[in-house]
Amino acid sequence: MTHSIAILGASGYTGAELIRLIDGHSAMQIKALGAYSKAGQSIAQVFPHLRHLDLPDMVSFDKIDWSGIDLCFCALPHKTSQEVIRDLPKTLKIVDLSADFRLRDPEAYAQWYGNPHSAVEMQGEAVYGLTEFYRDDIAAARLVAGTGCNAATGQFALRPLIAAGVIDLDEIILDLKCAVSGAGRALKENLLHAELSEGYHAYAVGGTHRHLGEFDQEFTALAGRPVHVQFTPHLVPANRGILATTYVKGDAQKIYDTMAQAYLNEPFIEVLPMGEAPSTRHIRGSNFCHIGVIKDRIDGRAIVVAALDNLTKGSSGQALQNANLMLGVEETEGLMMAPLFP
Amino acid sequence: MTHSIAILGASGYTGAELIRLIDGHSAMQIKALGAYSKAGQSIAQVFPHLRHLDLPDMVSFDKIDWSGIDLCFCALPHKTSQEVIRDLPKTLKIVDLSADFRLRDPEAYAQWYGNPHSAVEMQGEAVYGLTEFYRDDIAAARLVAGTGCNAATGQFALRPLIAAGVIDLDEIILDLKCAVSGAGRALKENLLHAELSEGYHAYAVGGTHRHLGEFDQEFTALAGRPVHVQFTPHLVPANRGILATTYVKGDAQKIYDTMAQAYLNEPFIEVLPMGEAPSTRHIRGSNFCHIGVIKDRIDGRAIVVAALDNLTKGSSGQALQNANLMLGVEETEGLMMAPLFP
Amino acid sequence: MTHSIAILGASGYTGAELIRLIDGHSAMQIKALGAYSKAGQSIAQVFPHLRHLDLPDMVSFDKIDWSGIDLCFCALPHKTSQEVIRDLPKTLKIVDLSADFRLRDPEAYAQWYGNPHSAVEMQGEAVYGLTEFYRDDIAAARLVAGTGCNAATGQFALRPLIAAGVIDLDEIILDLKCAVSGAGRALKENLLHAELSEGYHAYAVGGTHRHLGEFDQEFTALAGRPVHVQFTPHLVPANRGILATTYVKGDAQKIYDTMAQAYLNEPFIEVLPMGEAPSTRHIRGSNFCHIGVIKDRIDGRAIVVAALDNLTKGSSGQALQNANLMLGVEETEGLMMAPLFP
Amino acid sequence: MTHSIAILGASGYTGAELIRLIDGHSAMQIKALGAYSKAGQSIAQVFPHLRHLDLPDMVSFDKIDWSGIDLCFCALPHKTSQEVIRDLPKTLKIVDLSADFRLRDPEAYAQWYGNPHSAVEMQGEAVYGLTEFYRDDIAAARLVAGTGCNAATGQFALRPLIAAGVIDLDEIILDLKCAVSGAGRALKENLLHAELSEGYHAYAVGGTHRHLGEFDQEFTALAGRPVHVQFTPHLVPANRGILATTYVKGDAQKIYDTMAQAYLNEPFIEVLPMGEAPSTRHIRGSNFCHIGVIKDRIDGRAIVVAALDNLTKGSSGQALQNANLMLGVEETEGLMMAPLFP
Repeated sequence: MTHSIAILGASGYTGAELIRLIDGHSAMQIKALGAYSKAGQSIAQVFPHLRHLDLPDMVSFDKIDWSGIDLCFCALPHKTSQEVIRDLPKTLKIVDLSADFRLRDPEAYAQWYGNPHSAVEMQGEAVYGLTEFYRDDIAAARLVAGTGCNAATGQFALRPLIAAGVIDLDEIILDLKCAVSGAGRALKENLLHAELSEGYHAYAVGGTHRHLGEFDQEFTALAGRPVHVQFTPHLVPANRGILATTYVKGDAQKIYDTMAQAYLNEPFIEVLPMGEAPSTRHIRGSNFCHIGVIKDRIDGRAIVVAALDNLTKGSSGQALQNANLMLGVEETEGLMMAPLFP
Repeated sequence: MTHSIAILGASGYTGAELIRLIDGHSAMQIKALGAYSKAGQSIAQVFPHLRHLDLPDMVSFDKIDWSGIDLCFCALPHKTSQEVIRDLPKTLKIVDLSADFRLRDPEAYAQWYGNPHSAVEMQGEAVYGLTEFYRDDIAAARLVAGTGCNAATGQFALRPLIAAGVIDLDEIILDLKCAVSGAGRALKENLLHAELSEGYHAYAVGGTHRHLGEFDQEFTALAGRPVHVQFTPHLVPANRGILATTYVKGDAQKIYDTMAQAYLNEPFIEVLPMGEAPSTRHIRGSNFCHIGVIKDRIDGRAIVVAALDNLTKGSSGQALQNANLMLGVEETEGLMMAPLFP
Repeated sequence: MTHSIAILGASGYTGAELIRLIDGHSAMQIKALGAYSKAGQSIAQVFPHLRHLDLPDMVSFDKIDWSGIDLCFCALPHKTSQEVIRDLPKTLKIVDLSADFRLRDPEAYAQWYGNPHSAVEMQGEAVYGLTEFYRDDIAAARLVAGTGCNAATGQFALRPLIAAGVIDLDEIILDLKCAVSGAGRALKENLLHAELSEGYHAYAVGGTHRHLGEFDQEFTALAGRPVHVQFTPHLVPANRGILATTYVKGDAQKIYDTMAQAYLNEPFIEVLPMGEAPSTRHIRGSNFCHIGVIKDRIDGRAIVVAALDNLTKGSSGQALQNANLMLGVEETEGLMMAPLFP
Repeated sequence: MTHSIAILGASGYTGAELIRLIDGHSAMQIKALGAYSKAGQSIAQVFPHLRHLDLPDMVSFDKIDWSGIDLCFCALPHKTSQEVIRDLPKTLKIVDLSADFRLRDPEAYAQWYGNPHSAVEMQGEAVYGLTEFYRDDIAAARLVAGTGCNAATGQFALRPLIAAGVIDLDEIILDLKCAVSGAGRALKENLLHAELSEGYHAYAVGGTHRHLGEFDQEFTALAGRPVHVQFTPHLVPANRGILATTYVKGDAQKIYDTMAQAYLNEPFIEVLPMGEAPSTRHIRGSNFCHIGVIKDRIDGRAIVVAALDNLTKGSSGQALQNANLMLGVEETEGLMMAPLFP
């Protein structure tokens, strides 16, 4: 059985990644591609790398006939997404890649995003899309909110440890190194090749990055008491990849055992042998996440390092994994391709 | 039906690329991985990006039981390859990725490679592996010689034009820009990140690059008279990609029509609309080759630009395409994945 | 004696490079920095890398007191530059880095730039700023037009050969590889790191690049008859550098001797030993230009490769070299710093 | 007065950087360049980017006439350095860029470097070369031990805070992001462009990096009690730069004030306005170090970020700064060049 798919906001990087992945999927077919400024253009114009595919042209959203669509991926900017999704048919399954439905608490949303939510009634309905931890809810959901790519990486490194109570909840530091495609295709000076190549730096330092809203929500719910991590993202001169270096306090061996046990049967999460650290070069273009646990020379401390591809496992791959569950397809379908190396 | 595959020289970049592609192939299974210095290591040690795969360990060549193997890819260094292949079972189908069997004439081989060939008797047997132009021979062959990655790119741009007689055969200039993975995993100073990043240059200037042996052989055979092109490769700070800028003399429209016609039914060759030039960002990680034809402001001149991924269409992808033909599998099997962008 | 300097359009890359160079100059002091959108900002805001310098804030142009200024560098966009320069004090010495006064013929200007010139009366006054070939005129000039960075590179490779008549004037091909800072700090999709890194391509193919106007003007004047070269620029994933690969017909040894002789006493032009090719990694951040001459395997053909830093020798370094001449300062002052490697 | 300089180990990256800097120095002249495998080669062969300079050829060490040399920079590999320096004339001033004389305690040396020291008697004589904190000792020293580049960066971020007692000494975490030139010109697989570009990772995780020996020695001495920091370096795809993200506990404003006060009169250390974070793009090729202090959202915590160029301020620039002091030259001579941007 083939499911009919639409993508709104198809002209950005996550849109391109969705198309790439769905092209290799045995049970999905793209029926509509929605875009704003690039509406009216063919796939060859918007994405010359996809010119060999037989795909519909980009159209404005009002031109899409929803009657035959089973599931819609929304790869729209934050704030736009909630307004668009609010007006989509109520029977349509939706995977939202924006930040709009990640936070269940309207006040938390308003605090982190600076505006009141315009589809508050749907916030409660949305399921948080971190597949490995919300499988059943996602399978039953109509609306799934894809996680932030940084938020996903940090949670893969920390959730099992917080759940098992093997680390000090008040002493968690997350130092992330993010590749530039995570910032999207926006025209900003600091995303220019001339600025970024040979120039890397921290940003949103001091706890102002919006993905902290997700960390707070998820870790607090998991621990049953407030957990606030310290989180500093860095922009590095690479296109794909997130490397999360996590500093935790606890027994390293216990941490390792907890981690290895938690992900034992997960198809996409690879826990490396104790003491090994992952590299972004080993997950590029794939849906895999590599996690390493290393004991520090200081007793009672450990470093947990997680690596994934922000556009795949951190965004569009996760979205497809969730869509598979929502449509009753094998969860790994279309997602098992090996990383691209070098 | 599943074909059993061995890879010799599996620990280099083309070996890694072969494993990646075969992992996505429905009718092949890797039974043996042969290596030299990395013999005895597991796939996770040699290629951490492939640690999720269930693959045999790397072994030395004498440990391989050839009885159940249908086809062997040889991704060995030049000169080593001929010695190894000479001693393989005569019933084994072989796709050689080295330069050793590309030149049919032993004297031409000795001239370009500086040593006499040690398996002269097999040189005649080998079929030149440029799939689109040697399909029938490849399908019937036991030993196929993969082409040079530069040689493939240049030939995609020029063969139809030489065959059709629409360009001046004495005035062909090939200016190539090659990414660094084409140089392999060898430890050389000029391949270091610190040297190459922000440093690009021409090499083998003046007609000393060995792939010229292939151009001479193929273009001369095609034209029925000696054709010697001028060819300058450049190393650029990128990992994957070859961009061939070809300067030819002839009627641009006729050149375009010839090109478009020649590749009309080719699944992997995309001729862009007249006047458009391709980019390596649009073919990365894929088996596609994009070709553009542009009329110059000077009458009677045109520029033909071809772009492909040196590790895929230029090497391991081509090898798999040939193996498919040799094994009677659909030619495109395992090779239709979309490029990775960005 | 210290000369007082103003820079208009100081907030772009060539502006930053001018400030860097003048900071190391013994006889110049920056008195005014003019900008548009960044007027009102301090140097630390616009260029954090220059925060240690004691420099005036960026101001809008009408706030500059010209009475004490000896020389003004104009690093403004094309078309804007002519309008601004037209209204500057007539006693002010000016080095213009834009394209506005490079072409002496108003019709050629209109053809290449698509609009009539708005300061036609000054076009005749302006001296073409290729220092090594217009020294005396530049020293006597009030208004010097900096050359295009591609145009400079190509001319360094070809002028001596055209002047000496040692190459075929109808068979010149220029294949350039340009780093991204040459495109300036403009916010364009193809200048994003995610697009350019791992993605290189030809642009303005077929003879549409505006620097051809300069080649035509200069080579034709030099040869005393029309000379039209074929010119294809490529954008490569690097920040600084231009590599011009020039295909010419003539006797390689004669070409080499002509080149070596022509630049024998030039402080910034290094002709490499016969057969060696330059690399952009060896000129980065400096005012040097490296030139190599290589004999091709085809008799009567040679390849001339020139490398320089587009922001230094190709633009701001050239501008300072010209300013030195105009102010009676030693030509090399402030420009002898060694390249940055790696 | 011009001082005569020798450089041993001149063919590596720090050697090249020393030559670049000394070329712009008004009171130093290079009289001898010593190398191992490249002995006998000219500067143009070893460093084509320096071919315009009039410099002696590389020679083996025994060919150097020390009688006229005032100061020698040793840019040799660890362990080799101590053996070479042990046998140099006792009257010669020496700046060692290796790790061999950084640790004053022979046991600490043996622990971190895995071998007994072969010039123990000189370990006591050597002065630790962190200029800003050992000025008087350096000015009086005969042998100065250049610091590790990571060690320098971390110390710039932390020394004033430890000295002033404004941070918790048991809760210091240093997360460093290092560019690849810090690893030198060695031929290692992980330094290849194809591996590093698009692939970044942590290394020496868990407290095994040798620069920890320096942190322990210096911070413990400074605090008057044992201080052991947690330190994780990462290799990122850039050529030059170290970015140290330091997590500390203490009052952010007090930390900022302490920092600003400590470096108020330092010519090379720039403390950014409170809340701003530095970028490596703003110090490239210069001797400047930028430091930012940011308050975290968690009370009582702050992030201190320091950025410098590993080859300049982190190594060869520091060495020259020390040499200036040792020779009685103005400390900043030859070191005030502005960073290269972009």
